[in-house]
Amino acid sequence: MKNTILVVGSVALDSVQTIHGRTNKALGGSAVHFSMSASQFTPVRIVGVVGEDFPGPFRRLLKRRNICLEGLRVMPGKTFHWKGRYDRDFKNATTIATHLNVFEHFKPKLNRTHAECGVLFLANIDPDLQRDVLAQMGKPRLVACDTMNYWITLKKKSLVKLLFKVNLLFVNEEEARQLTKEHNLIKAAKILTGMGPQAIVIKRGDSGSMLFYGGEVLAIPAQPIEKVVDPTGAGDTFAGGFMGYLAASPDWRNLDVLKRAMSYGTVLSSFSVEDFSVKRVGRLSKSEIHDRYKKYVKALSIK
Amino acid sequence: MKNTILVVGSVALDSVQTIHGRTNKALGGSAVHFSMSASQFTPVRIVGVVGEDFPGPFRRLLKRRNICLEGLRVMPGKTFHWKGRYDRDFKNATTIATHLNVFEHFKPKLNRTHAECGVLFLANIDPDLQRDVLAQMGKPRLVACDTMNYWITLKKKSLVKLLFKVNLLFVNEEEARQLTKEHNLIKAAKILTGMGPQAIVIKRGDSGSMLFYGGEVLAIPAQPIEKVVDPTGAGDTFAGGFMGYLAASPDWRNLDVLKRAMSYGTVLSSFSVEDFSVKRVGRLSKSEIHDRYKKYVKALSIK
Repeated sequence: MKNTILVVGSVALDSVQTIHGRTNKALGGSAVHFSMSASQFTPVRIVGVVGEDFPGPFRRLLKRRNICLEGLRVMPGKTFHWKGRYDRDFKNATTIATHLNVFEHFKPKLNRTHAECGVLFLANIDPDLQRDVLAQMGKPRLVACDTMNYWITLKKKSLVKLLFKVNLLFVNEEEARQLTKEHNLIKAAKILTGMGPQAIVIKRGDSGSMLFYGGEVLAIPAQPIEKVVDPTGAGDTFAGGFMGYLAASPDWRNLDVLKRAMSYGTVLSSFSVEDFSVKRVGRLSKSEIHDRYKKYVKALSIK
Repeated sequence: MKNTILVVGSVALDSVQTIHGRTNKALGGSAVHFSMSASQFTPVRIVGVVGEDFPGPFRRLLKRRNICLEGLRVMPGKTFHWKGRYDRDFKNATTIATHLNVFEHFKPKLNRTHAECGVLFLANIDPDLQRDVLAQMGKPRLVACDTMNYWITLKKKSLVKLLFKVNLLFVNEEEARQLTKEHNLIKAAKILTGMGPQAIVIKRGDSGSMLFYGGEVLAIPAQPIEKVVDPTGAGDTFAGGFMGYLAASPDWRNLDVLKRAMSYGTVLSSFSVEDFSVKRVGRLSKSEIHDRYKKYVKALSIK
């Protein structure tokens, strides 16, 4: 159980439109994108909620990837549904509709197996719930969380209490700035480190990502992709690759391990944007991951 | 003369305002920022024009860096003056005033020494002039150019004729998109390569830079900087470090050499933003460059 990740987050149906096409109620949600990616490295268990309409094929797809769905509760009603559109530049999603449905009343309850997982990833949900989940855990050796602008605006106090108890924080650059009221990302990360987490990971989309750990600052680029089809879930896929690799490592408190984790996160998210929903990551082989990782690392090696 | 760079571009006085202060008629211009950076690696000669008001101390500062000013013509009138302001995010400069002054009638004339330089950098000026300069050259072994949105809009045909004759093109991401009408940078670079240059360098500010050469795509990050004081000239400083390193190398047609050039460009531009005008690069020692370069390369080495 030491290497098993428990992820708590949304399981959703996404209807997405981009210049390359559209999906209608495709598999999505932060816990899904995270799990599909992390399960390439380590066992994953999801705690989440879906409605009675959640399709059997989606359930089977997740199970085939060895993602445990014991904690995926089915409640009367419909599954969380997000409908959005991306412009040509893929920078910002325009939300057309958000139907929380059963997710509105999500109250994560952990069983003993969940509580004994060695690694916990609190995907972007209400920080009150994130803290509640953490309180139900045994003694995880690594706790990471994500959040979003919505919670920073509405529940900053609760979020700050949570940060005090996590090892690793994933945020995007706008969230880092909003949380700290500091524009410069190095300064923002220093403030965030002062709030509790030992490591801060700032996600910057196609500008790559930054890691702050033990006084070190590291920036790595995104893997350039010639045809971006759908960026939905890229951040969760990144966190999944990152956390999956960390969970499978004996000791995450090591800069080299964290750098590899970040590179795997980058590689996994570069695959995820190549197709809609979890299609690309769903059909991903270990050797495809390994090949792109090797190429990525080699490109960054300056001799 | 094989390793000497001839740079043709603006020599200016800049009045810049940022959250960290302001300058009044400080030393600036594309040829200046480029030369200050490139001269750390190789001899540089400037062809440009200034007015009678161009301060002696600026002239002496450039000469101390072994930048040859024989080609810096003094014309009756005033030096090119740009006045601008940056917001807190340093993304875009707001131009308050542009006085072209003597630069409006700039007609670069090369003497024999200039024409025999092995490397030519055509900084961002009217593409008609860039082509005119190229026509006056002997047989340079490496020709690179920069441009800007203004010329892409106004003189695209002339620019396209120039591109056909250069080895290396420096553009920022918006310019790459504007020139090719293609949003994706890999696709845009492929189109640009089809227009002539063997290598394309896309500058992305604090998102780093991308290199396209011989079918290879390389993205490297910017060096994170905790206190950005003034980004003016960072792109030219990047090109200067890049071209300076290439000019000092026996053969630039090599991916490893180009990667090192790109890293030196990154390091030099990271210094340049730490102070106003050319102040930081002006007081830069070889060992400071070497130390930051080593740190940068080490950070990107994923073991």
